[in-house]
Amino acid sequence: MTVNTPALQRALDGRWAATRDDVRAQMGQLSLDPDPDLSTEEYRALTTENLRGLAESGRPQQGFDPAYGGGGDVGGVVTAFAMLGYGDLSLLVKAGVQWGLFGGAVQVLGTSRHHDEYLRAIMNGELLGCFAMTETGHGSDVQHLRTTATYDPATQEFEIHTPDAGARKDYIGNAARDGRMAVAFAQLITGGETHGVHALLVPIRDEDGQPMPGVTIGDCGRKAGLNGVDNGRLVFDHVRVPRDALLNRFGDVSEDGTYSSPIANETRRFFTMLGTLVRGRISVAGGAVTATEKALALAIRYGATRRQFAEPATGEEVVVLDYLVHQRKLLPALATTYALHFAQAELVADMHDLQAPGADAPEAAQRDLETRAAGIKAVATWHATAAIQTCREACGGAGYLTANLLPQLKADTDVFTTFEGDNTVLLQLVAKTILSDYGRRVAKLDVVGKARFAADLLGGMVAERTGVRAVLNRGDLRDRAHQRRLLVGREEHLLAGAAQRMRKALAPGADQFGIFNGTQDHLIVAARAYVDRIVFDAFAAAVEQVEDTEVRALLEVVRTLHALSVIEGDRAFFVEHGYLTAGRAKAVTQAVNTLCGELRPHARTLVDAFGIPEARLACPLLDGEKDASSAVTDPAPSDEEPSDLASVG
Amino acid sequence: MTVNTPALQRALDGRWAATRDDVRAQMGQLSLDPDPDLSTEEYRALTTENLRGLAESGRPQQGFDPAYGGGGDVGGVVTAFAMLGYGDLSLLVKAGVQWGLFGGAVQVLGTSRHHDEYLRAIMNGELLGCFAMTETGHGSDVQHLRTTATYDPATQEFEIHTPDAGARKDYIGNAARDGRMAVAFAQLITGGETHGVHALLVPIRDEDGQPMPGVTIGDCGRKAGLNGVDNGRLVFDHVRVPRDALLNRFGDVSEDGTYSSPIANETRRFFTMLGTLVRGRISVAGGAVTATEKALALAIRYGATRRQFAEPATGEEVVVLDYLVHQRKLLPALATTYALHFAQAELVADMHDLQAPGADAPEAAQRDLETRAAGIKAVATWHATAAIQTCREACGGAGYLTANLLPQLKADTDVFTTFEGDNTVLLQLVAKTILSDYGRRVAKLDVVGKARFAADLLGGMVAERTGVRAVLNRGDLRDRAHQRRLLVGREEHLLAGAAQRMRKALAPGADQFGIFNGTQDHLIVAARAYVDRIVFDAFAAAVEQVEDTEVRALLEVVRTLHALSVIEGDRAFFVEHGYLTAGRAKAVTQAVNTLCGELRPHARTLVDAFGIPEARLACPLLDGEKDASSAVTDPAPSDEEPSDLASVG
Repeated sequence: MTVNTPALQRALDGRWAATRDDVRAQMGQLSLDPDPDLSTEEYRALTTENLRGLAESGRPQQGFDPAYGGGGDVGGVVTAFAMLGYGDLSLLVKAGVQWGLFGGAVQVLGTSRHHDEYLRAIMNGELLGCFAMTETGHGSDVQHLRTTATYDPATQEFEIHTPDAGARKDYIGNAARDGRMAVAFAQLITGGETHGVHALLVPIRDEDGQPMPGVTIGDCGRKAGLNGVDNGRLVFDHVRVPRDALLNRFGDVSEDGTYSSPIANETRRFFTMLGTLVRGRISVAGGAVTATEKALALAIRYGATRRQFAEPATGEEVVVLDYLVHQRKLLPALATTYALHFAQAELVADMHDLQAPGADAPEAAQRDLETRAAGIKAVATWHATAAIQTCREACGGAGYLTANLLPQLKADTDVFTTFEGDNTVLLQLVAKTILSDYGRRVAKLDVVGKARFAADLLGGMVAERTGVRAVLNRGDLRDRAHQRRLLVGREEHLLAGAAQRMRKALAPGADQFGIFNGTQDHLIVAARAYVDRIVFDAFAAAVEQVEDTEVRALLEVVRTLHALSVIEGDRAFFVEHGYLTAGRAKAVTQAVNTLCGELRPHARTLVDAFGIPEARLACPLLDGEKDASSAVTDPAPSDEEPSDLASVG
Repeated sequence: MTVNTPALQRALDGRWAATRDDVRAQMGQLSLDPDPDLSTEEYRALTTENLRGLAESGRPQQGFDPAYGGGGDVGGVVTAFAMLGYGDLSLLVKAGVQWGLFGGAVQVLGTSRHHDEYLRAIMNGELLGCFAMTETGHGSDVQHLRTTATYDPATQEFEIHTPDAGARKDYIGNAARDGRMAVAFAQLITGGETHGVHALLVPIRDEDGQPMPGVTIGDCGRKAGLNGVDNGRLVFDHVRVPRDALLNRFGDVSEDGTYSSPIANETRRFFTMLGTLVRGRISVAGGAVTATEKALALAIRYGATRRQFAEPATGEEVVVLDYLVHQRKLLPALATTYALHFAQAELVADMHDLQAPGADAPEAAQRDLETRAAGIKAVATWHATAAIQTCREACGGAGYLTANLLPQLKADTDVFTTFEGDNTVLLQLVAKTILSDYGRRVAKLDVVGKARFAADLLGGMVAERTGVRAVLNRGDLRDRAHQRRLLVGREEHLLAGAAQRMRKALAPGADQFGIFNGTQDHLIVAARAYVDRIVFDAFAAAVEQVEDTEVRALLEVVRTLHALSVIEGDRAFFVEHGYLTAGRAKAVTQAVNTLCGELRPHARTLVDAFGIPEARLACPLLDGEKDASSAVTDPAPSDEEPSDLASVG
């Protein structure tokens, strides 16, 4: 099988291939390899300069409303944003704060008065701003933020106030150095009544960069990574802003203080507002995928030239990527990265179609998008954390040197697992949604269906011992439909079990917190199984659409390796519940080994097809490629100890 | 159960409790919280200053030969060294390079002529040095280093030479800035014959700090962490050193160039030399354990005050450590850290007894120590990497701020998994040794024993289906003996399987490399099972010796959580091979949940008992402890969506 790299790249590039090519070319014009000894201030200044360079390119504008000079290309701009993951992640995050979070909030939570006044200045980077949501005391539980925005009809102003230390806005990007304005999230109070969290535009610095009266700005200082981003803290001491500072698409206050909203229910309104911000979460997942791709490109190319330990028969030192244990570290991670790449592309396309100007997205479709975004964000960022760590280790001491790029990738992406929604909390959210959907599906069943369903639920253990699942113990592990049956079987099983456990909480006098708390780990696993299945489906669907037969054949092997390594990773579940016999589970492990060997000759092609600009990978780690043809042969001393295992220093 | 923290600390402190207390007091006198914005040069200078402070304390001297003013307290000095993991890990590593690697090599590979001339200056920090083993092209495969030391009888000198770019000494601590001398490892050549790797003392800088003639010194630059350590590169261009620069305990060259050694076999000599350096590997494991303890102390104390999401019934926000998913992240990791703490203490004590001045360690005992050291180093450093990562995530955005100490712990310990022996290679080494021991055990069996053994091997699958393992499906999961039976069962099973697979390589015409390579993942798993068992044994033995009944009872719960979480982590194996039924495997998972709940009230006690100086934990993350008594109550809006799951920002 010879695979044409450009053809494979076309499959990966997908719908926004032209945008990807533009960004590849553009990345050559930015300073994306900051001197690692830059001070925090110097790195921040460089990142701000790069941000202005991005603004000048016109690229970020593409995501905004065409009525204000934007391109209306939401999918393109999110794709382009993620491509920055091949370069400097501080720039990626700073751009995400400015245009995705700050600009995005003004676009989707504001109305024409805000768009008229601010959108152009935001797009072209004249007005730098913050997304001031998280507080020191409330991160995951946004609904209970404590900052207040109290309406004063006498002056027709809101008073923004930080009532206690826990209500301080914290970890806010663009706050410590550059931001002039913040979209501040606060409990809206008018006429003594609270209407839940709303967003308001609050100036935080004047033209000279001095804090506005009543605004105290702090600096979060040095971080594990992303030190080009100026994260800071904001405390508001009775800061007054005009009535029209309220981003009033989903809730407004009239001059006399009367509150109105198109969505009567407070919680529903809150979730609708949050839902419009889904782009941020999708963008983080995209950045996690590209950063992982870069790390894998480095580690796999290094592994394909690095030699260590001589093969006794020939005396020639073995390329480390020819060792099974080395393949096992990198190739399943590569396969999963492919899966996430395609799942992410599908998510971006769906978001684009739902959020395109003029599109009137049905609520169910929007909710489904949010659920998938939350799940894929959690899985993609945890995968990034684990895979980049593995890539570092696979490069040994060289991988620890900043010059070889992996340390920065590791440190910068580390926070992805907890920002834009803590992954554990996100998976609980996913679990809750899929559980509700499941309940609705059950509710729609007729009498016979309900009876069968109840029997399934109660008879779970019985079914495990009967022939119901025997079919899963036959069939070809390489067959797409068979892989899917296993993944779906696990998902449905876990969902049914979770539903059964949660139903106990409905009994009178039940210890609701205790039951919910005791089910948490089960819910997380169920959510994970759901995400694994939708990622698999997205990957499989993308592969089916590839026309080049060699590329499709290769991608089918990659899909199989991904699916079987997911199944292998949770094979205890499959065996415990009768989906695989012990022998079949061992066959899965053996198949993963075999598939690693099959993909080994294509490893370089698979990472080249990401189309990462060569300048973004240039580092001493890859110097070995220059003389990879001159293999070192070394006559091993024929002694009583096999030299290929033993020498360790 | 009320547990007395000092009594628990005494159990943890063990044999070198007094040393630990001394170091705790001493840590207040060093600058251990470097400004995170220090330049690389400033941080290196600070670390060197701290190193001199350590030398003045007299502590490092305690590990050296009393004949030269040392204390002969190997165990004490390794214990003290590991305690630096509560402070600044750059200092820990720099001290390890100076006294453990450089000084240790002079002590154990040199003879009196070297001891007389250098030991005092090394101990008191006047002579700073390097351990120049690793080369750019050879890290794990030390036996095939390419630097040469060629004897010239005409001048009675060795010529040290770097023959090619791959032979450059790389990642060498103390090389880039401070080192005056290096213990350089090179292929010793005399009379045209090579005698394998030997160590020689090579001056690399003169009194003014300038490189010696023929020595080119490079700088590895910024790293992911440990930036207080000046890692560098050394290239030797026909550098001449006198004949007595050879550290000649295990191999010498006479004036006329005749080679002699007390160990005739070259490979055996090489491994004997390397074996004497086991202290470095044990020290790294110790540092990994203390760093993990510090990270857990931070995350658990934070989790015990941080509140998020209100309990619907009361409206009171829940302390995050009361959530099962949060306990699941931290408490099994804490239990395993306890296990590793005790296993490490046992290892240090055994090393002390074997290496004490005058001790004449039997070779088998030394080899066993090396095997255990390699295995525990691999498991402890991987555990550190994973657990510190989890601690960071468990603290959310706060955990990402350098001020909160976790980022530095993460970055500094990251390289532990690949230095002093790459973990994967170390586990292969362990596998090889335990496999040889297994072979010897089999060889000693009588005819009946051999027949039974062969039947066991060949009948593996049969045994799985018979009643042999049924006993493991009964018994109390909390029972120490039962836990051990499961761990031993897995270890023996994997070992037997590996032996069976490797025997195929002995067949005439067998593809040795292919068979070996295909078995690599099996070998790694077998080694891991061995390490899990010895760690369990060490923990269990230590618990048995505790006299305080409350402390012992608590530690038994901790031991059970550790054992069951190890078993849960590999429960696919136990189910696939009939050691646990599916139902019993689920019971293991349930028991882990229950044990987390049982240990929750003792979580603070368990981390306090590490006795980490409070000044080393002081950071904004723990500010919540100051007002932990004032719980925030927040009446949750009773709306259609349960607020404790849904709000995510």
